[in-house]
Amino acid sequence: MAEHGQAKRGIPPKSDFNAWYPAIVEIAELVDKRYPIKGMDVWRPYGWKAMRCIDNLTHSEMERTDHQEVRFPLLIPEDLLDKENRLVSLLKRAREEGVDPSELRVEEEEAGFKKEVYWVKHAGETELDVPMFLRPTSETAMYTMFPLWIRSHADLPLKTYQIVNTFRYETKQTRSFIRVREIHFFEAHTAHADEECASRQIDEDLEIVGRLMDGMSLPVIISKRPVWDTFPGAWYTIAIDVIMPNGRTLQVASCHHYKDQWAKAFDMTYQDETGQTQYCHQTTYGMSERLLGAVVGMHGDDNGLIFPPKIAPIQVVLMPVAAHKNPAVNETVLDVAEQLRESGLRIKVDDRDLRPGQKYWDWEIKGVPLRLEIGPRDVENGNAFAARRTGGKEPIPLSNIVDSVKQQLDMVQSELSSRSQSHVDECIVKLESLEQEILDGRIYEVPFDGTDADAELLEKTTGLAILGHAMTGYDEDQVCIVSGKTTKRKQHLARMY
Amino acid sequence: MAEHGQAKRGIPPKSDFNAWYPAIVEIAELVDKRYPIKGMDVWRPYGWKAMRCIDNLTHSEMERTDHQEVRFPLLIPEDLLDKENRLVSLLKRAREEGVDPSELRVEEEEAGFKKEVYWVKHAGETELDVPMFLRPTSETAMYTMFPLWIRSHADLPLKTYQIVNTFRYETKQTRSFIRVREIHFFEAHTAHADEECASRQIDEDLEIVGRLMDGMSLPVIISKRPVWDTFPGAWYTIAIDVIMPNGRTLQVASCHHYKDQWAKAFDMTYQDETGQTQYCHQTTYGMSERLLGAVVGMHGDDNGLIFPPKIAPIQVVLMPVAAHKNPAVNETVLDVAEQLRESGLRIKVDDRDLRPGQKYWDWEIKGVPLRLEIGPRDVENGNAFAARRTGGKEPIPLSNIVDSVKQQLDMVQSELSSRSQSHVDECIVKLESLEQEILDGRIYEVPFDGTDADAELLEKTTGLAILGHAMTGYDEDQVCIVSGKTTKRKQHLARMY
Repeated sequence: MAEHGQAKRGIPPKSDFNAWYPAIVEIAELVDKRYPIKGMDVWRPYGWKAMRCIDNLTHSEMERTDHQEVRFPLLIPEDLLDKENRLVSLLKRAREEGVDPSELRVEEEEAGFKKEVYWVKHAGETELDVPMFLRPTSETAMYTMFPLWIRSHADLPLKTYQIVNTFRYETKQTRSFIRVREIHFFEAHTAHADEECASRQIDEDLEIVGRLMDGMSLPVIISKRPVWDTFPGAWYTIAIDVIMPNGRTLQVASCHHYKDQWAKAFDMTYQDETGQTQYCHQTTYGMSERLLGAVVGMHGDDNGLIFPPKIAPIQVVLMPVAAHKNPAVNETVLDVAEQLRESGLRIKVDDRDLRPGQKYWDWEIKGVPLRLEIGPRDVENGNAFAARRTGGKEPIPLSNIVDSVKQQLDMVQSELSSRSQSHVDECIVKLESLEQEILDGRIYEVPFDGTDADAELLEKTTGLAILGHAMTGYDEDQVCIVSGKTTKRKQHLARMY
Repeated sequence: MAEHGQAKRGIPPKSDFNAWYPAIVEIAELVDKRYPIKGMDVWRPYGWKAMRCIDNLTHSEMERTDHQEVRFPLLIPEDLLDKENRLVSLLKRAREEGVDPSELRVEEEEAGFKKEVYWVKHAGETELDVPMFLRPTSETAMYTMFPLWIRSHADLPLKTYQIVNTFRYETKQTRSFIRVREIHFFEAHTAHADEECASRQIDEDLEIVGRLMDGMSLPVIISKRPVWDTFPGAWYTIAIDVIMPNGRTLQVASCHHYKDQWAKAFDMTYQDETGQTQYCHQTTYGMSERLLGAVVGMHGDDNGLIFPPKIAPIQVVLMPVAAHKNPAVNETVLDVAEQLRESGLRIKVDDRDLRPGQKYWDWEIKGVPLRLEIGPRDVENGNAFAARRTGGKEPIPLSNIVDSVKQQLDMVQSELSSRSQSHVDECIVKLESLEQEILDGRIYEVPFDGTDADAELLEKTTGLAILGHAMTGYDEDQVCIVSGKTTKRKQHLARMY
């Protein structure tokens, strides 16, 4: 029956991930890709609700950690970029003075950024004096205003965030949620008194990441990106990667420590306790709709999506069965629905006049974690019949339905967590030598503590990209695969999205 | 003391509304107007939270009425406008065939619309083959996709909405929330089987409007706009106006019945029960950040904002008083805070080390509806001291604090409703004859059932604009002020924002 439904719905097997993914996002009605601009999909109600559930997790983490939500304009006047250009010059000077070579790369990236924006040069029939661009990210817009808000140490830390759409003129192949041109984006921007305070913010960000990823049952690799993969203008970048089913890594979040580099460019200073003027130190933390892409990719199966209960747009679907045989069936369904709704669960009653099998497929495809059926016999026995999307069915007592349902949902959530952890454990293998054969769909971990030239050699030899130093290194001393030095540092090598 | 605070904060008296309004939106930290693009303000945390509280009211109304939230791309390719142009031609033909003259005006408006959009003609270093514009509203984007989603009568009604930013290249003077270039916008778009079903949707919209305005304590005038003020492409437009303190009306919402006019332009058809192909009938319903502008304008006073409790970003501010004298004070404050928070109220504990008077002013300016003070004597007496932003103070029992606070908030809400109703009642006077002197700050109601030429005469004579036929007419027969015909129809004349 499932196979029949599958064929009917045209879902490719998940083992063919590159066919499955683009098909399922449309079949499950997350997005419609037929909008006539490449890389700008229409969010359908189910997809948008899923994204909003993820956003709500984020909002509650932001509230917990005293971040304040702001909303900046979409358009940025080109002349504000002068300040960014000054930042580039500043980093150039740093290079001339022999400071950290990471800063050398900013200039190129900077140019690249201008190549990726959408320009507004006309309004109505007027050509604008100063061209504007659609935000690719909001540093420039925000850091124009922050100096007006920060006067003294009492104004610090300034912890802000916004959830907005950003725009990139992608020339690479676009993929729903993964690489799009209008991006549903989260960005937190903070300003602090000094480098240490900013570093503690990065720690807090990583704690938040941990909690969010847990909510989505997504195991991640957290790495300090190599110098050449550091965000322009950042001192360092910590990136959070998910391993997709095809073994490619997807960067779903990143945190950047800016030190005082942007503050110097934007004259962002404050009076400290002694009345001295000091530059702020800053961080940013970004995430995007890629989170939904990771959820879709990680958890789905041959029959459709599977949503982790904590972010499922519909957590429980209730189905009356043979309701015509006993009026108590519909009454019981409505009563259970009411109880579950009141307890804060997101539920749906499916009383459509369709064969049960057809309804099953619909909710299977949409990845609803729990299906509850209630028929005449269930009513008599005081039970509902619970079927988990991850497998397993059993009757649960109506007398204690809210707790029982929550228990069932917990079972689905932990099943997804353990499945995705197994996937990661299977994917990651240790690279024992440079001669080792590189297999498709594998991530390689490797003790590495070499120079940039060693890293280049490592990338060339394996044909993979270095994710960076893993935040959790080896417990025991290892030997660096290139330099031969003793090290506890761990790197991952992967094909990246 | 209040006067001192006022002078200190630089709030002009509200009687000088045109000075008060732009000052208070910044002093209360709703927006920052210093962003370097005219008409594009930065939403500060407090302002954004207020807007989100209003949006949440809207979301819950949409959920109650089975609208589904979608999210369409911001950018619209110019060539999609061809279909709108076809609509214009269609309406032209209608004119030639002698149909309702309302349709005659679309063409001009249409041209006007192109004069008001921001254009994206360049991406990176590329000139785009097809220019795109930032949505001024989403008809074109949505109605390109709707035909793909609507096949049969089973797909109807289609009830969608989105809350997004829209863009207008305003050439008039901009004012925060009231006339801006990047607009926080709500738009519902529905498709129905026939004209009647669409008309019922307009009824539902007006019911929703009623509930929302009640939540914001905003009395409104609901009018069917005259032909020349009908939305382009609409059969008719119903507009919802708030009377601001200076007596000018502010349109905060509008509903449009499109009949099958857009559906014909966009080939939006469905198979009815008999297998016949039929055109859909459509409606839209729009609102914007003007709602917040109306709340600010209607309820504020010389000392700052006053938020109606249902949409207040902070509903209750709690203040420990002389906490150093008794450790039970802070404990009690935290316990009360916990109870109020758990009951779903939005609260803030202000334990800053400042003089109480200074704290009062801060929350007075920000319009928090209720202040709760708890000092050593209050703890002893088992009371909290409640001060309403609308005036009035009294002790309330700690033993039943949640209910007591909710009661206090209800008092503030109904006080605001009755104040704003009085304001409206005072503002609206009957125009008894065309010779009557027109006073500043007044809205005139008038029995009117004349022709377009009569209406023009009425507008010219009074120097005011016609809002349209009021949805609630006179109970008794009246005499039309121009034509002398007997009528129950009521019109309002006003200066509009």
